[in-house]
Amino acid sequence: MATLCRPAVSVPEHVITMEETLELARRHHEDHPQLDLALRLIENTGVQQRHIVQPIEETLKHPGFEHRNAVYEAEAKTRVPAVIREALDAAELRPADIDTIIYVSCTGFMMPSLTAWLINTMGFPSHTRQIPIAQLGCAAGGAAVNRAHDFCQAYPEANVLIVSCEFCSLCYQPTDLGVGNLLSNGLFGDGIAAAVMRGRGGTGMDLELNGSYLVPETEDWISYAVRSTGFHFQLDKRVPGTMEPLAPALKELAGQHGWDATDLDFYIIHAGGPRILDDLSKFLQVPPDAFRFSRATLTEYGNIASAVVLDALRRLFEEGSARHEGKGMLAGFGPGITAEMSLGRWIA
Amino acid sequence: MATLCRPAVSVPEHVITMEETLELARRHHEDHPQLDLALRLIENTGVQQRHIVQPIEETLKHPGFEHRNAVYEAEAKTRVPAVIREALDAAELRPADIDTIIYVSCTGFMMPSLTAWLINTMGFPSHTRQIPIAQLGCAAGGAAVNRAHDFCQAYPEANVLIVSCEFCSLCYQPTDLGVGNLLSNGLFGDGIAAAVMRGRGGTGMDLELNGSYLVPETEDWISYAVRSTGFHFQLDKRVPGTMEPLAPALKELAGQHGWDATDLDFYIIHAGGPRILDDLSKFLQVPPDAFRFSRATLTEYGNIASAVVLDALRRLFEEGSARHEGKGMLAGFGPGITAEMSLGRWIA
Repeated sequence: MATLCRPAVSVPEHVITMEETLELARRHHEDHPQLDLALRLIENTGVQQRHIVQPIEETLKHPGFEHRNAVYEAEAKTRVPAVIREALDAAELRPADIDTIIYVSCTGFMMPSLTAWLINTMGFPSHTRQIPIAQLGCAAGGAAVNRAHDFCQAYPEANVLIVSCEFCSLCYQPTDLGVGNLLSNGLFGDGIAAAVMRGRGGTGMDLELNGSYLVPETEDWISYAVRSTGFHFQLDKRVPGTMEPLAPALKELAGQHGWDATDLDFYIIHAGGPRILDDLSKFLQVPPDAFRFSRATLTEYGNIASAVVLDALRRLFEEGSARHEGKGMLAGFGPGITAEMSLGRWIA
Repeated sequence: MATLCRPAVSVPEHVITMEETLELARRHHEDHPQLDLALRLIENTGVQQRHIVQPIEETLKHPGFEHRNAVYEAEAKTRVPAVIREALDAAELRPADIDTIIYVSCTGFMMPSLTAWLINTMGFPSHTRQIPIAQLGCAAGGAAVNRAHDFCQAYPEANVLIVSCEFCSLCYQPTDLGVGNLLSNGLFGDGIAAAVMRGRGGTGMDLELNGSYLVPETEDWISYAVRSTGFHFQLDKRVPGTMEPLAPALKELAGQHGWDATDLDFYIIHAGGPRILDDLSKFLQVPPDAFRFSRATLTEYGNIASAVVLDALRRLFEEGSARHEGKGMLAGFGPGITAEMSLGRWIA
């Protein structure tokens, strides 16, 4: 067994609403030839508000990559431990029980990874394995779940702590003026999530099978340009259409397991944007309401990158609707274009 | 079984000798108050030559982080595929046989990781798992071996491709003038290595047990400062002394397995520098010659970061001295301070 226990999630105290986002876009880009299109795209995201680690006035400044990354490190050290403690409590474990920490984050870069600091300051054992992943973007939430599952397959007594720390607001680039950038400025939010996968015991989603899929020839569709000003997010306009090639991969994985992807009891899906959820609902032939957890994350927090799937799972826990042994799917999507998918049963 | 097959290694065509390195240091830093110390430290590395991806005149320029990273990507795409093909041939496998690619590299940053491009261009299956790790530095070679081992433990039929691509010369920072930086400028080299771990079949090092160890409170000892000019390597002068706290971790892992770390048949050790090898030889009470593969890597290529352990293993294959079922240890060391250690038997 490899049970993904109840995630803990925290979003920062600074809030920006959709109205404020639209107003800022109008003010900063009044002469932009595609302003109307950008405003329409932002409205269509349905993101009502986002939470960010700094007040909006600070967020809109670019004090340089070094300063940004220093803010990333300071905010991570301030905010991550409490989320981890809550996730450990939810799994009824202590730091000494953890064998591996998988830390996923694409919005800041540290070497050594935050994992070393966490081990030193939170009492994790010195032999804790560290798996830091920075380059899978939004797909990294699903990847973390899948690598934790693999680890528990290898060592059935192991417990794996998953941590996702995404401060997308620290990648705001004021000089990036493409429509995809203006949209991104209204789509992404900040958030921290953590969850424990228990090899033995625990309640939650018991993973049974995982798989990856790379959509051929799409590696330029979601990417970072790495510049002296930091990471510049580049979004191709074809990305919203990627559920058409990805839905068959989800169906195929379910089929391999003798399950029908159109008829599962719960779905935890990366909320890249509204079109992702709408299209996947169409291609998998599941009612839109089946993705209500992901939709709520998108509406209330925005796209919080690799943390989305853990936040959506937290909402499933809170709704309390999952029945024992109900079948479910978890899927993260991100650069590559990569899907990280898993199937599991609910253990109440 | 999880057999680490013969690695393929490639170093670039541009060569810089120790004499040239010393001459450059004398010329560029003639007024440096600690020049003599820096020259002595460089001489003590024993690094006779290093291979670098650009001619030395280009290497010494800093054309900006964006350009540097573009060179990283272009050189990786030019040089990595041939090394992978050689590693696949050595393991008698084709791209279609690979289940997971673990790509470790701390000297350039791409999102998506090079794994997406490799899958698209080299014919790996679309369902290949991608595990890119950028933040474990020199320890990532050992980490890649250990995560591949874990994966084969979870899925005994699986084959994992490990790729290490380190262009340390692209992290040269002309404005960093600490003695640790001058030393680093004479220590690190560029190299690419790849190896396949086969779940079934193959000849080489059959992994039996792996473990990690973080030396408490040393997270600042090896680190990157992330700046607009890229990654700045920071080396604390206490690093050469880290084998004293690390040797017991190696002994303990061997002890857990019923082995004696002082009496193994082969040792594949990260060649961080000569003191690392000398001290470990002393603390493990093994003859200096036991680390001859690592010493040869250091002398001929310099510290090629995460690629060192794979290059040292290649040299063991070439020497042909390992006897069937001989016991061995592989260990990578890097930022954290983290050790990634494994034990295995030779399968001839």
